[in-house]
Amino acid sequence: MEQASRGAVLVTGGGGYIGAHTAKSLAEQGFRPIVFDNLSSGFREAVRWGEFVHGDIRDGRALREAIEAHGVRQVIHFASLIEVGRSVVRPDLFWDVNVRGTASLLDAIRDCGVERLVFSSSAAVYGQPEGLAARDLLAEGLPTAPTSPYGDTKLACERMIEAYCRAFGLSAVALRYFNAAGADPSGLIGEAHDPETHLIPLAIAAGLGFGKPLTVFGQDFPTPDGACLRDYIHVVDLAAAHVAALAVELPAGGFEAVNVGTGHGWSVLEVIDAVERTLGRPVPRSVGARRPGDPPSLIADPSRARDLLGWSPACSSLDQIVRDAARWHSNQRYGRAARAESASGAQDQPRMAEIEGGDRPGVRSAV
Amino acid sequence: MEQASRGAVLVTGGGGYIGAHTAKSLAEQGFRPIVFDNLSSGFREAVRWGEFVHGDIRDGRALREAIEAHGVRQVIHFASLIEVGRSVVRPDLFWDVNVRGTASLLDAIRDCGVERLVFSSSAAVYGQPEGLAARDLLAEGLPTAPTSPYGDTKLACERMIEAYCRAFGLSAVALRYFNAAGADPSGLIGEAHDPETHLIPLAIAAGLGFGKPLTVFGQDFPTPDGACLRDYIHVVDLAAAHVAALAVELPAGGFEAVNVGTGHGWSVLEVIDAVERTLGRPVPRSVGARRPGDPPSLIADPSRARDLLGWSPACSSLDQIVRDAARWHSNQRYGRAARAESASGAQDQPRMAEIEGGDRPGVRSAV
Repeated sequence: MEQASRGAVLVTGGGGYIGAHTAKSLAEQGFRPIVFDNLSSGFREAVRWGEFVHGDIRDGRALREAIEAHGVRQVIHFASLIEVGRSVVRPDLFWDVNVRGTASLLDAIRDCGVERLVFSSSAAVYGQPEGLAARDLLAEGLPTAPTSPYGDTKLACERMIEAYCRAFGLSAVALRYFNAAGADPSGLIGEAHDPETHLIPLAIAAGLGFGKPLTVFGQDFPTPDGACLRDYIHVVDLAAAHVAALAVELPAGGFEAVNVGTGHGWSVLEVIDAVERTLGRPVPRSVGARRPGDPPSLIADPSRARDLLGWSPACSSLDQIVRDAARWHSNQRYGRAARAESASGAQDQPRMAEIEGGDRPGVRSAV
Repeated sequence: MEQASRGAVLVTGGGGYIGAHTAKSLAEQGFRPIVFDNLSSGFREAVRWGEFVHGDIRDGRALREAIEAHGVRQVIHFASLIEVGRSVVRPDLFWDVNVRGTASLLDAIRDCGVERLVFSSSAAVYGQPEGLAARDLLAEGLPTAPTSPYGDTKLACERMIEAYCRAFGLSAVALRYFNAAGADPSGLIGEAHDPETHLIPLAIAAGLGFGKPLTVFGQDFPTPDGACLRDYIHVVDLAAAHVAALAVELPAGGFEAVNVGTGHGWSVLEVIDAVERTLGRPVPRSVGARRPGDPPSLIADPSRARDLLGWSPACSSLDQIVRDAARWHSNQRYGRAARAESASGAQDQPRMAEIEGGDRPGVRSAV
């Protein structure tokens, strides 16, 4: 079995946005993805590569069974609650799922002799870095000071993982994502959050007429055009970073936290312009007040990712991100997400028939 | 019942060092302490004030029953694993007991309508603050960057507690202890850790001849005498800070983290000198290398405690701390701790018959 030659990799949360893209990337690289997901927010339809195990990360026995049944030696851990706003009103759930769930996974990993863990962390661990000017890059050595329970739980997991590594001889890489965006060019998988809070899907939905007009939160930031700057990373590049992190040579007990971003910031207005160019339609919008806690600029210093993972983004141009996202949102969505839109009458809105793709070296899908 | 007039206070870990002193202080102030302890490291003999409930904080049902049976409206939460060295080799236990245990307690507190939580935190949340000179004071606004799994779990608990407060309308005060030391002047309760890692009990045991010679870790710090500086707070003062924190006016959702220290640093050598003066005997010692992670100086800025709690230390002179500790270690120890020493043959060593006390305004015991 050629496909299984590089071994089985447990992908918790592999029915979710980044998890599904990573499962595809793993399969393409000759790994055997074992997707472990409770489908609380992931999609069964997104699990097209490897095998599917229905389970919850807080269930240690289910984890051990999955790891042992499939001979798993490496784990990529995405399963998590992720919506920042919800974390403020339900921190109990975030600490339970994210932190207790990660403890449960770590115990299973240790007990079953898994050698490598790659953890889905977030730039949210930095909070609002002080003393940085717009376009300054965030490096991993910055103080960590999350500003939401979501960020607190990601940082708590990083600290727990590092401690387990040192105590029990595991090795792990935590990837601190900046703004994941785009979709697989195949159109088979893409972003589908409920509620959706990310800029690019919201702008596309507004432009295509099946979402609310966009609100731009703040145009008075100390940035060139007054809108805040973020670092958008194509989900296909992000998936590749996870696969690269499996192969990093680390000593037993080694732990590394690594930013995954491009090192370039796009303003909210530049992103909206790109969406309008791609769709050939205006994006209806209004300007709102700044949201509390939104820093003017969050841009990764990508040098540790380059040095440690040997990874750099290959398809994270803004145009490509927006084009791939628009194709997904126009033509393909999972049943549940589409049903939610149908229920709100959105099916009456016009959709874009086809978004043309350009050359995407390195991301052509075999599917 | 005069004693119950100020209400029932659940004291998790009330069989431990600081918890037992706080239960006594609560009783003296007219509260009704309900000590909840699994006796994994606490002592049944230390529970002399109020009622005792044998239970584990990870058992939500036991917590709810204790809270409801006794009409608890306020909780002081000490129960925790505390030994830094053990946290490095068994981080799994620390995350489970300290963090999952605190989550379990918070759920019970929320469900039962408890209004105020006082949490036993630690200066360990600061880690090794950068850019501070010897004798610079640590204020609460410093970045948090723990350097041990123990400190990580204390910080994780603080962040979780703050999030629960905001989400569910509780209010809480986290007290970040500096170096707790001393014992109740009654001689009924005192410090008994296994293993003991704190300077003053180790120096007293060495001086009295029933402990190993003391090792001074590092005499090449950038401090006046080359030994590192720490801020020692008498456990009776520390207990009083907890009682004061129950009464702080906070809005629903309010959370405050407050240093509890004196604002004065004593060097390890000054502490040993005080022990020798008190015992009238030399403390056998050797000089070892610095321990990794030991900062030269850790001294509280006590101003927020003064302003918020209306509290300041009344009996934290070094002489009084050492005198009260020496009295406890010479004359009174709990059965289990004494048995452990007997087993090691320590009962053959001479003990000090009596340590004379001086005037201790505000800490005279009614017992």
